Amino acid sequence: MLGASGFAGALAAYLIWRHPGFELTAVTARAEAGQPLQEVYPRYRVPLVLETLDLDRHAEVDAAIVAYPHAAAAPVVAAMRSRGVRVVDLSADFRLADLATYERWYTTHPAPELLREAVYGLTELHREAIAGATIVASPGCYPTASVLGLAPLARAGLIADVVIDAKQGISGSGRTPTAETHLSQAGENITPYKVDGHRHTPEIEEQLALLGADLAVQFTPHLVALDQGELVSCYVTPTRPVAQAELRELYSASYAGEPFVELADAPPGVREVRETNYCRIQALVHEHTGKLLVFSALDNLWKGTSSQAVQNLNLMFGLAETDGLT
Amino acid sequence: MLGASGFAGALAAYLIWRHPGFELTAVTARAEAGQPLQEVYPRYRVPLVLETLDLDRHAEVDAAIVAYPHAAAAPVVAAMRSRGVRVVDLSADFRLADLATYERWYTTHPAPELLREAVYGLTELHREAIAGATIVASPGCYPTASVLGLAPLARAGLIADVVIDAKQGISGSGRTPTAETHLSQAGENITPYKVDGHRHTPEIEEQLALLGADLAVQFTPHLVALDQGELVSCYVTPTRPVAQAELRELYSASYAGEPFVELADAPPGVREVRETNYCRIQALVHEHTGKLLVFSALDNLWKGTSSQAVQNLNLMFGLAETDGLT
Amino acid sequence: MLGASGFAGALAAYLIWRHPGFELTAVTARAEAGQPLQEVYPRYRVPLVLETLDLDRHAEVDAAIVAYPHAAAAPVVAAMRSRGVRVVDLSADFRLADLATYERWYTTHPAPELLREAVYGLTELHREAIAGATIVASPGCYPTASVLGLAPLARAGLIADVVIDAKQGISGSGRTPTAETHLSQAGENITPYKVDGHRHTPEIEEQLALLGADLAVQFTPHLVALDQGELVSCYVTPTRPVAQAELRELYSASYAGEPFVELADAPPGVREVRETNYCRIQALVHEHTGKLLVFSALDNLWKGTSSQAVQNLNLMFGLAETDGLT
Amino acid sequence: MLGASGFAGALAAYLIWRHPGFELTAVTARAEAGQPLQEVYPRYRVPLVLETLDLDRHAEVDAAIVAYPHAAAAPVVAAMRSRGVRVVDLSADFRLADLATYERWYTTHPAPELLREAVYGLTELHREAIAGATIVASPGCYPTASVLGLAPLARAGLIADVVIDAKQGISGSGRTPTAETHLSQAGENITPYKVDGHRHTPEIEEQLALLGADLAVQFTPHLVALDQGELVSCYVTPTRPVAQAELRELYSASYAGEPFVELADAPPGVREVRETNYCRIQALVHEHTGKLLVFSALDNLWKGTSSQAVQNLNLMFGLAETDGLT
Repeated sequence: MLGASGFAGALAAYLIWRHPGFELTAVTARAEAGQPLQEVYPRYRVPLVLETLDLDRHAEVDAAIVAYPHAAAAPVVAAMRSRGVRVVDLSADFRLADLATYERWYTTHPAPELLREAVYGLTELHREAIAGATIVASPGCYPTASVLGLAPLARAGLIADVVIDAKQGISGSGRTPTAETHLSQAGENITPYKVDGHRHTPEIEEQLALLGADLAVQFTPHLVALDQGELVSCYVTPTRPVAQAELRELYSASYAGEPFVELADAPPGVREVRETNYCRIQALVHEHTGKLLVFSALDNLWKGTSSQAVQNLNLMFGLAETDGLT
Repeated sequence: MLGASGFAGALAAYLIWRHPGFELTAVTARAEAGQPLQEVYPRYRVPLVLETLDLDRHAEVDAAIVAYPHAAAAPVVAAMRSRGVRVVDLSADFRLADLATYERWYTTHPAPELLREAVYGLTELHREAIAGATIVASPGCYPTASVLGLAPLARAGLIADVVIDAKQGISGSGRTPTAETHLSQAGENITPYKVDGHRHTPEIEEQLALLGADLAVQFTPHLVALDQGELVSCYVTPTRPVAQAELRELYSASYAGEPFVELADAPPGVREVRETNYCRIQALVHEHTGKLLVFSALDNLWKGTSSQAVQNLNLMFGLAETDGLT
Repeated sequence: MLGASGFAGALAAYLIWRHPGFELTAVTARAEAGQPLQEVYPRYRVPLVLETLDLDRHAEVDAAIVAYPHAAAAPVVAAMRSRGVRVVDLSADFRLADLATYERWYTTHPAPELLREAVYGLTELHREAIAGATIVASPGCYPTASVLGLAPLARAGLIADVVIDAKQGISGSGRTPTAETHLSQAGENITPYKVDGHRHTPEIEEQLALLGADLAVQFTPHLVALDQGELVSCYVTPTRPVAQAELRELYSASYAGEPFVELADAPPGVREVRETNYCRIQALVHEHTGKLLVFSALDNLWKGTSSQAVQNLNLMFGLAETDGLT
Repeated sequence: MLGASGFAGALAAYLIWRHPGFELTAVTARAEAGQPLQEVYPRYRVPLVLETLDLDRHAEVDAAIVAYPHAAAAPVVAAMRSRGVRVVDLSADFRLADLATYERWYTTHPAPELLREAVYGLTELHREAIAGATIVASPGCYPTASVLGLAPLARAGLIADVVIDAKQGISGSGRTPTAETHLSQAGENITPYKVDGHRHTPEIEEQLALLGADLAVQFTPHLVALDQGELVSCYVTPTRPVAQAELRELYSASYAGEPFVELADAPPGVREVRETNYCRIQALVHEHTGKLLVFSALDNLWKGTSSQAVQNLNLMFGLAETDGLT
C-alpha cells in the first residue's frame, strides 16, 4: 500500500489487512513515515508502521495499491509495473483514455505510454479486462456512482440529455484540513462547488460514450454536512418515452447477479451503504415530466474508492469478487 | 399568532414578539394550550402562554398569522377575515390560484370562495398586491427559493426546460418526531423523497407560468443531515444561447434594490443565510453544456416561511419592509 | 433473535447473521412482524423476515438473544430457559443481583427466581461464570464503560469517591422517535438528563462493590449531538496518593491479554471505537488535584450492548471470544 | 475592532456593527487585510474592509475590542490605552491577576505593568469595576460558564471540592483548520483534551478564590461534535449538607434581576442559548450522593466571548447593559 496516510490509502490498507486472501506487507507515506499507522488512523487498528517508499524493497510484492495525488502517481505506477508488480492506482492518472483530455483537466501526463495498458476499474463494466490487467485505474467516486446509475440507459440508447446533481460528505475533500473541511464551516451546510466544471465530468462522459451515449454531461457536485456518503441524482431526458415497467426490466437485466449493485424500490439513502461496497440504485420514470430519474448512492471512500480497488484486486488474482468485502 | 406550537408558528411568534412595530397579543395551540411557549421553545424566550383558540377574543387584533395544517387553516382564515382581521396564512390553502390543482394535490378545499381574494406572498414578485391584501398566502419554502431563482429567466422567456434539485434540512419535515427525523436516521444521511411528485411542484409551475414560463417542472427534493437550510439547484435548458454577461445583467436588473435578495459570485452555502430573511442566488452559464445554472439558498424556516410572513406583514401595515428582520 | 426491531436487537441479529460460528434461524418482532428485516434496517442486509414470537417453534435453538423492554424480557427468558435454550438477555431484568434494588428502580420483577441463576455479562470481569451460564444478563452500556474503566481502581481499594460524567449519542435513546431524538432538537446540542438519578447507577455500584469498592457513585449522563458513541469520564478521589507509574502498571496488569480492552496514552475519542467491540481506556493521575482520571470510550450499541452479547455467546459455546467480532 | 478575522473578532465586529449605540469604524487583520469582511464571514454581512492595523489612525476612537492571540494582544492594548482608548481585550493577557501564574501557563508577559489596571470582565461579578475600567479582560469561555455556575456556592462557603467536566463545540478550537477541526474527525465524536491541565483552570481558581473558595479545581474539557455551544457540569462536594430549597434560594437570590443569567428547573441544553448572551444554569442537590450539581450552558462565542465583551462595553459607556444584545 503506497501512500497510506490519506483517507483512501488508509482505508485500502485496512481492507487489505483484514482480507482473508491478501497479506499487507508494507504501508508507505512521506511526511508521516516512522509513525505507526494506528496512531494516524486509530480506528483501523492496522499494526504496521508507515515507511518511506523504497522502490526496490517495496516492489517485492505481487500487487500494489497506489494512493498518490494525480501526476505524482504515474511515475510510481510505472516504476512498480516495470518491476512486474500489478498495480491498482487510486489517482486520476490512468482513468482517462484520451491524453488531451487528461492534460486539459489535470497537467502534463508523466507516463502517457502506459495509458493504453491501463484498464478502467469500474468493476461492473470492465470485469474481464480488469481480471487480466497489469494496471487498473480506480474510477473517481462520482463517476462510479454516476456511470453505474446511467449505464443501462446509455447502453439502451435512451439518454438524450442528462443532468447529474451530486452530493457528497466532507471526507471526499481529503484529509488536509482546510477552511471548507472545518466543522464550523462544513457542519450544518450545503454548498455547490466547482460549478463551472468538475474534472470528473470528462471521466463520466468517456465511460458513457463507450456505452454508446456520446454527449455533454451537466455534472454539478455539492458538499453536504456529513462525513462519508455520496448520492448522485440523475435527471435524464430520454430519446423516447419510456414506461415504468420497461425501465424496471432494463435495470434488473443489467444488474442481475451483480453482488454489489442493489436495485431499490424506494429512494436510497447514503446511510444504507455506509462503509460497504454496495451501490444502491433507484430508477423511475417521472410521470409528470417524462424524465427518467436515477438515484445512485454509495460510500465515496468505499465503493467510490478503496473497496472497489479491493474488488478489482480480487478479480486480478482470481479470488472471489466479494472476498474481504462482505 | 394562531398555531404557535409548530416550528413555523413558533418562529413567527418570536419574530413578531421582538418586532419594533408589532405587538404579539396571543399565541394559540391545541394540544399544548396552557403551557408557556418558553417551555416548548426555550430558545425563543417569548413570555406568553399558549391558549386555546377563541375566535371572538383572538379576533380583536389587526392581523393574524395562521400556522395550521392545510385544510385546517382555511376555515380559521375565513373566520378571522370575516371579523375584519388581515391574515397571513402559512399553510398551502391559498397558495394555488387553481382550485382543481389544489384538490388534486391536497384535499377538498374548505373555503374556495376566498381563493380569488388571497395574494401569493412571494414578496419580491407581488409586493404591491401584498400591501393591499386581506389574505396573504405564504409560499412554500421550495417555491420561494425556486421561483426567486428562476423568475428573471422566466420573465425573459429563457426557460425551455428546467430540472430543480432541492436539498433541505430536517426542520423542513416539521416538529412531529418520526423515523425520518430521528437523528439516528437523519444524521449522516442524504435521501431523495417524494420522488414521484412533491406538491410544491404545481406551486412553482403556477408562479413561473404567471411570469411567462408555462412548462412542466422537474422538481425533486432531498433530505440532508442538518437542521435549518435549503438549497435549490436549478438546471435550465435555455431557449437560446445565453452569454455570461447577459445573465449577470439580467439578474442584477431584476433584483436591484431588493433588500433580501443577494446575488453572489460564488456558490451560496446555506450557512450564509441561516436565521436570516435573505435568499442568496448565484446564476451562471455552464460553458460546457450551455445550460444556465441557478443556485438559490435560504433558511427554510425564515425566508422560506416565517420571516417572509413578517416581511409581508410589514408591507400590509405600511412599515418598512425590513423592520424586525435585520 | 427475539425482539429484532429495536436498535440493539437488529444489530445483534446482524452480528449473528455474519458470524462464522452461529446460524441465525429467526428474528422476531411484534408490530413489525411480517416485514423483511432488510426493509426496517436496510444497512444490515439480513435476509430474514420478522416473525411473531412462537415459543415452541422458536425454542428449537441452542441459544437466544432477547432484546425486549425490561419486565417484558423476564417472562420470555424464563420460557426459553425452561425449554433448555441458553439465553443472553439485553434487558435490565437480570442485571441486578439485589431484587429490592431492581424493584426500586424498575418495577415488580416477573421472574425473581431466576435472578440467582443469571450471570452478569461484563465479559472481562465474569468470563468463567459466563462460559457456564444458562442466562447471561447483558450489562447496560454505561455500566460497561464505567466498570471497565474503574475496575482496576476498585480492586486495588483506591476509590474513596467517584464522579462519573457520561456522554452518549442519540442511538442510546432507542428507536422510538421522540422530541429528544428529533435532529432539530438533538443536533447541535448537549444536554444532561436524568440528573437526579439514572438507573444504571445501582448497576455500576453493585459491580464496583463486588470488586471491593462499596460506595455511592455520582453518575450523570448527557445526550450529545451524534449517533453512536459513548464516553464516560471518571474523576476518582483516591484513598491515598497514587503515582503515574503505579497507575499505568495497575491498568496494564489488569487488562494484559484482553482482546477488546485498549489502553491508550492519549484521550480516547468515540470515533476510534465506533462499530467495534473495543473499549478504549486512558487512566492518568492529575498532578494538580491528585485525582485519578479515567476516560473510557465505546460504542454504546456494540460493546455497550450487542457485540458484547456476541462476545458472551462465543464464550458460552466454547468458541474463540473474538469470533465474528474482528 | 482589532483582529477581526478570527471567530471571536468577527462576531464582535458584527455585534458592534448592528449595535444601536456604537459605530463600528474599522476592522483590522493581518493576513486578510484588503478583503471585505463579508467575504470572509458572509453570514455577518458587515460592510467593512479588513485593514492593516495603523495605531495612529485606528486609535481615533473611544473604544477598541482587541482579538489577538495571547502575548500579541498586550502590546496593542498598551498602545491603544496610552492613546486614551478604552479597551476590551479578548485574549488571556489581562485575565490573571497573578503574573507568575500567567507566565507559568502562557509566556513572558509583554505588559505586566497594566495587570493591576485591568478589570476581569465577568460582568455579573465585577459590574461596578467594569463600568469604570480602562482595560477589561474578557474571561475565557470555560471560566465564564464555570464561575457563573459556582459563584453562589463559593460565596456561601459551600465548596469543599469540585469537579468540572466541560463540553464544547468545535468553534472553540478557533478558525485555523487542523486535524481536530476537520469534520471527518470532529463529526460523530467526543474527546477529552488537555487532560493533564487546561489553562483556564487558574482563571477559574483565581475567581473562585476571590469569592472565598480557595481550592484546587479539577477541570477537564471535552470536544464534541457540534459548532457553537458549551456546557459545564460541576460536581461539588459541599462543606456541609445542603437542602434542595436552600440551594434554590441561594441561586435565586444571587441572580435576581440579572438580565442574562437564567435559572432553569430542567437540565439546560446548549441549543437553548445558542447565539445569545444568556447563561442558563440549573443547580440541584443530588439526593443519592449529597453532592451539589450545577449545569451551566452558554454559547462559547457569544456569552463565552464576544457578546459578553459588548455587555461590558455597554457598561463602560453608560448604556443599558442589554443594548444590542436582545
